Amino acid sequence: MQGSTLHSMKDMIDVPVEAMPVAEAIATSMPRVIDAFDRAAASDVAPVRDLVVHVEHYRGKMLRPVMVLACGIAAHPSAFNSGFSTSPQWASLISREHIVCGAVVEMVHMATLVHDDVLDEAEIRRRGKTVNALVGNEASVMLGDYLIAASYALCASLDTPHASREVGEAARVVCSGELLQLSNRGNFDLPRATYDRIVDMKTAALIACACRLGAWASGASADVINELGNFGREIGVAFQIQDDVLDLTGNETVVGKSVRKDLEKGKMTLPLIHHVANTADRPRAIELLKVLATPASTDLADQEQPTSKLQTAALAELLAGVAKTQSIQAAADEARALVASAIRRLDCVAQGPARMLLVNSAQAVVQRAF
Amino acid sequence: MQGSTLHSMKDMIDVPVEAMPVAEAIATSMPRVIDAFDRAAASDVAPVRDLVVHVEHYRGKMLRPVMVLACGIAAHPSAFNSGFSTSPQWASLISREHIVCGAVVEMVHMATLVHDDVLDEAEIRRRGKTVNALVGNEASVMLGDYLIAASYALCASLDTPHASREVGEAARVVCSGELLQLSNRGNFDLPRATYDRIVDMKTAALIACACRLGAWASGASADVINELGNFGREIGVAFQIQDDVLDLTGNETVVGKSVRKDLEKGKMTLPLIHHVANTADRPRAIELLKVLATPASTDLADQEQPTSKLQTAALAELLAGVAKTQSIQAAADEARALVASAIRRLDCVAQGPARMLLVNSAQAVVQRAF
Repeated sequence: MQGSTLHSMKDMIDVPVEAMPVAEAIATSMPRVIDAFDRAAASDVAPVRDLVVHVEHYRGKMLRPVMVLACGIAAHPSAFNSGFSTSPQWASLISREHIVCGAVVEMVHMATLVHDDVLDEAEIRRRGKTVNALVGNEASVMLGDYLIAASYALCASLDTPHASREVGEAARVVCSGELLQLSNRGNFDLPRATYDRIVDMKTAALIACACRLGAWASGASADVINELGNFGREIGVAFQIQDDVLDLTGNETVVGKSVRKDLEKGKMTLPLIHHVANTADRPRAIELLKVLATPASTDLADQEQPTSKLQTAALAELLAGVAKTQSIQAAADEARALVASAIRRLDCVAQGPARMLLVNSAQAVVQRAF
Repeated sequence: MQGSTLHSMKDMIDVPVEAMPVAEAIATSMPRVIDAFDRAAASDVAPVRDLVVHVEHYRGKMLRPVMVLACGIAAHPSAFNSGFSTSPQWASLISREHIVCGAVVEMVHMATLVHDDVLDEAEIRRRGKTVNALVGNEASVMLGDYLIAASYALCASLDTPHASREVGEAARVVCSGELLQLSNRGNFDLPRATYDRIVDMKTAALIACACRLGAWASGASADVINELGNFGREIGVAFQIQDDVLDLTGNETVVGKSVRKDLEKGKMTLPLIHHVANTADRPRAIELLKVLATPASTDLADQEQPTSKLQTAALAELLAGVAKTQSIQAAADEARALVASAIRRLDCVAQGPARMLLVNSAQAVVQRAF
């Protein structure tokens, strides 16, 4: 398990040799995070246990716990001018608070993935597959609730309520962002400011929380906590923009999940907002977006289902338009600028392998193809 | 608002004159609970605000906050041999901890109601009504998550993580109970022990938690906290059994919500378990239950929808059978025995108006027709 975690971290951020001792310290500590997660989610109720085991397949890059631990090491007072060189020395800076916070933010993230299933199962049903969507929906809702409750119980096992306050507030913001996005389904005139607000809430808030908690658990100053929170927020927004780009340009087998989902769901992403704002034929661009959105999320709900042929042509025309307005490029430029800004925020912590790892993690966000 | 709270409390438990000063103290404090709820749920995101306002219509008997405050007063050291006689004197025992815990348990309860909507909306869709079920489901899921997150953030605003631990653990148990029940949909052979486990988890755990937190916030001893928790657990189970009975016998306009839902959903309730165990023709009883369950939750899923006529006849035959096995009576007897046991637990607190109010609340649980 240690090996595979290190492997996936290496894959993700192509760790430079100078940052390796800290990358290894994190990889060595990750099984403790997974263990805390598993213990908190464990149940002696058989159907709960089965679902929890199923959900372990959702475990991916563990970006949020990695951020807790990396910010924890980077912001630790001992990291300033330390003579640490080996992985065990760096790992010694990781406390139970770091481990618990890492597990908690991952559980909250996992719960949001489980609740996203509610939608995905609905879509599978709409395409006519033989899924018992009702029972599936309910189990997804309850399992997500179970994971959230377990994460809060775990977080409240810490000596003070500080982390619970931060996590509760971050989760509240994440849900607000999701609701704001939901209420703008099929709004192809989505103002850029609303897009920014949605992304800041639904994606960036929890990553910012992870960075803040890592620094907090190391006893960092309020200034360092806030600045690492800002680092997390900016790479969170960049992460979302990269997701936006991959949804439009990505290859399904490389990305590892369905693409063009944002189009189907009538969600306006940054490249699409840029395209609509810059195309010579705005009404036509919006018409294409309407065709590509699935019926339930647009005014087409009560009309005949658009044929797949019509949608294929619309996608080709839209992508040609997006190429002409260079909207992918524009979005990617914004993501890169955010990462550059995030990296400047790291001046608040000492130079060294932990900071180098954070720099590389930030860069990886916009370099990833999955 | 104070008036209407007192009014509904009076309606519910027909408060005897000796208990009135405490009933009034609670009624006077309830607006503080509602205010804490509203502040914690408040949002400057318009679609979130709209949904939160909508959800305020769900506010009912406020049983859980009433239990926090009533147990808080009953278990307060000052309640022992106090000369308190007026409502303001009793109200002075209610601290910010009581108010916050009351608001938190109500928010968690409200979140479970919102997530129950996910199912209800699915049913409306199945009956062919023109509801945009997809958007509705998603908004329900996210709004429930929002309320849960807000409740945890509020709970973590207390000085210690104690209440957060209790609430997190109780919510975990509630979700486990819901999942255990879900996995037994359409299991008409549900063992009694599994029924007991489901009810103890999904209904009793949060009411027990409310009673425990009330006592804890008054600085009561561990013994008193545990005993009031047991009081809450037993009235919680009795409450569920009464719900079971009302679903089978209740009048829709009196109960205020749809009845026969348990039958539709293939949920085995206590009267049904008793009936199946005691009827002379068990296979026929189970056949009737299968007919009455909606297709999605039974093996009939892929068959033709049973006609409403067939279901009407099945209901009449089932109810006649239930009358013959006296299963309603048997379930009601069990609920009354639980309430009697719960009332004996109140020996752990001083005699007086608060204890008298708890006795009356417990009795009201099995007397209510709604």
